[in-house]
Amino acid sequence: MQDTPRGARLHIAIFGRRNAGKSSLINALTNQNIALVSDVPGTTTDPVYKAMEILPIGPVVIIDTAGIDDEGELGALRVERTLQVLNKTDLALMVIDQAAGVSDWEEGLVAELKKRNIPVIGVVNKIDMGQPAAAETLNWTKRLAIPMVAVSAKTKQGVEELKRQMIKHAPENWEGPPILGDLITGGDTVVLVTPIDSAAPKGRLILPQVQAIRDVIDQDAIAVVVKETQLADALANLRQPPRLVVTDSQAFKHVAAVTPDDVTLTSFSILFARYKGDLETLVAGAKAIDGLKPGDRVLIAEGCTHHRQKDDIGTVKIPRWLQQKVGGELKFEWVSGGNFPTDLEQYQLIVHCGACMLNRREMLYRLAVAREKGVPIVNYGVLIAYVHGILPRVLMPFPAARRVLDGK
Amino acid sequence: MQDTPRGARLHIAIFGRRNAGKSSLINALTNQNIALVSDVPGTTTDPVYKAMEILPIGPVVIIDTAGIDDEGELGALRVERTLQVLNKTDLALMVIDQAAGVSDWEEGLVAELKKRNIPVIGVVNKIDMGQPAAAETLNWTKRLAIPMVAVSAKTKQGVEELKRQMIKHAPENWEGPPILGDLITGGDTVVLVTPIDSAAPKGRLILPQVQAIRDVIDQDAIAVVVKETQLADALANLRQPPRLVVTDSQAFKHVAAVTPDDVTLTSFSILFARYKGDLETLVAGAKAIDGLKPGDRVLIAEGCTHHRQKDDIGTVKIPRWLQQKVGGELKFEWVSGGNFPTDLEQYQLIVHCGACMLNRREMLYRLAVAREKGVPIVNYGVLIAYVHGILPRVLMPFPAARRVLDGK
Repeated sequence: MQDTPRGARLHIAIFGRRNAGKSSLINALTNQNIALVSDVPGTTTDPVYKAMEILPIGPVVIIDTAGIDDEGELGALRVERTLQVLNKTDLALMVIDQAAGVSDWEEGLVAELKKRNIPVIGVVNKIDMGQPAAAETLNWTKRLAIPMVAVSAKTKQGVEELKRQMIKHAPENWEGPPILGDLITGGDTVVLVTPIDSAAPKGRLILPQVQAIRDVIDQDAIAVVVKETQLADALANLRQPPRLVVTDSQAFKHVAAVTPDDVTLTSFSILFARYKGDLETLVAGAKAIDGLKPGDRVLIAEGCTHHRQKDDIGTVKIPRWLQQKVGGELKFEWVSGGNFPTDLEQYQLIVHCGACMLNRREMLYRLAVAREKGVPIVNYGVLIAYVHGILPRVLMPFPAARRVLDGK
Repeated sequence: MQDTPRGARLHIAIFGRRNAGKSSLINALTNQNIALVSDVPGTTTDPVYKAMEILPIGPVVIIDTAGIDDEGELGALRVERTLQVLNKTDLALMVIDQAAGVSDWEEGLVAELKKRNIPVIGVVNKIDMGQPAAAETLNWTKRLAIPMVAVSAKTKQGVEELKRQMIKHAPENWEGPPILGDLITGGDTVVLVTPIDSAAPKGRLILPQVQAIRDVIDQDAIAVVVKETQLADALANLRQPPRLVVTDSQAFKHVAAVTPDDVTLTSFSILFARYKGDLETLVAGAKAIDGLKPGDRVLIAEGCTHHRQKDDIGTVKIPRWLQQKVGGELKFEWVSGGNFPTDLEQYQLIVHCGACMLNRREMLYRLAVAREKGVPIVNYGVLIAYVHGILPRVLMPFPAARRVLDGK
């Protein structure tokens, strides 16, 4: 059984002061003893991302915060860590010890969540140890102005009601657009061209290909999966032409030659640029490559720290392509992992990875920061299509992005 | 990026006395500091299975043995753990500290490996600390009668030569037959019917489906992936009929009705029964269901300990089907994980899971134990096909197994 990709899981952040019972609440929600539970404040020492299943909500990532609670890291580091969590949170739980009540700390953090339109539910915990007075509870509810649920993580009292509230308040459309489902209808045929190169793990397909096949069959459509060398045969064997052909960028030239001009053609990179972010912003970023001059500063940002291969895309290929295009040296800087700088004014271009390890909310946040600072941002897939001259054709299904490219 | 499935990785067991440098050798082979290295004997406390990449060998599982070395668990437990490792080992490395040399312990274990036809390479380690005399090395080689390589895991001297020897001595065909690649040729079309039920993770396909698609395109054939509800449309849209239709067992009835009789039809369960084991043995096991009587003992064996769902196949559905068939109560026992009992004489039937977490060698071992004890063994997939009356048709591509079923 393969896992749901992390980026396609609802990200639920658990906030609360030390010893409010964050870890026990996670256990109670998941019926598992995964999180270490302890009465000693500060057992958890870092925000931890746990992929799990909460029935009936489905696959989620629980962000188990710590170091950013009231007694955690001080000052700038605490603020930075909090922001990193907020940037990827789809739904927040604010855990409150019934004996300790609501303080300025909860009030401040709830205000930050509201500012970002992140839904938050107050969880009054440890009601097995004592019931707060009705007046007190009313006062907390008034102060935070969020839905509140009383639970005992220990006895599980109230936990089912909390799950119901979580389903009710989870943001709609947190997943963003489908990968390609909105481009097709039931009964359509979609051809997926999947070259098998050395990067593909033995006996498997890479994740975007699997996700695209699943999206096709979820629409009651038919997925035809072929290597580029079998594409012509596959097309010839279809009585009705396909509604859509999707190709890996590396096979684009061959695929474009074989696919009739009236068949819509795009690439996995373009589909995932849209799925994970905002295609128009990224296409505008690609156009900005034309304005780069020798000596300009370019930030290359990756969402994870991966094992670099010999001809690494982020450190070797993209710098080479950009410098060829510019006809001179550029100044490159690299960042990776959860850190995305906010002092972006110093760069003329930001090139971001495909964000397979980031959720859509975080990628949209990064795009927003770049836009706010007036710095063009493009991702790997859109950049590759642009420098290879295939961007106009692969934008066929996306007229708004095509207009950005054509400057209309 | 998705991982190569564990069952499709070469399983390399690292044996050696305490402090022979097993963990450091693993680090040297993988260029990673994954295994904890320490000079204190007995750092590793359990056989650990690590999926990793050894270039240029490819994806492997390293079995880091301990507790079964010369100072580990005593007596029966040590023997049992050793056998558990041997049952899944494709290739063994026997690590020898050059200062300590070869003892009866190495000689005994090498004899056990040879008895099982498991290739083994002697690795004389720590040559940075001193070089054994030539006469001594010759004596060790003579005593063990296996290929020997001298290395320093610390300085990496000899490690590339060791990798060459590992490639040379890795058993051919350790992966077993292809999933379906031998049933088709280049240019063929294969239709894969993949119902999406609640067990499929959101946004993904289950692993056997992904592996089957990959096998189709690796043969330069064309994979058509559909839900059962689109099968008729998909077939109607093909100018040339498919060479093969593969369906999930749960959709079999509908798929069999829609697929023309002259098109070869089978199921994912049957393909994986063959891929992981020995189809004829399992079909013979299915036939033995007819001979069960009320009161008979049935062992249900699962390769992993999974989260049981409400209508669990191993604990609920299969017992129900078998008892319906027998018309009375049966006595069920269950085992799971790495343990497979050898005192099988007490059972009239063994029902094994699909073995997705076991490698082929281990599944073949379990089949061999059952055969030796004269106890019929069937797996979930073959059993389900049999009790639902679809086994004759899904054995279409496998005439030898079909003959077993027909008693010819």
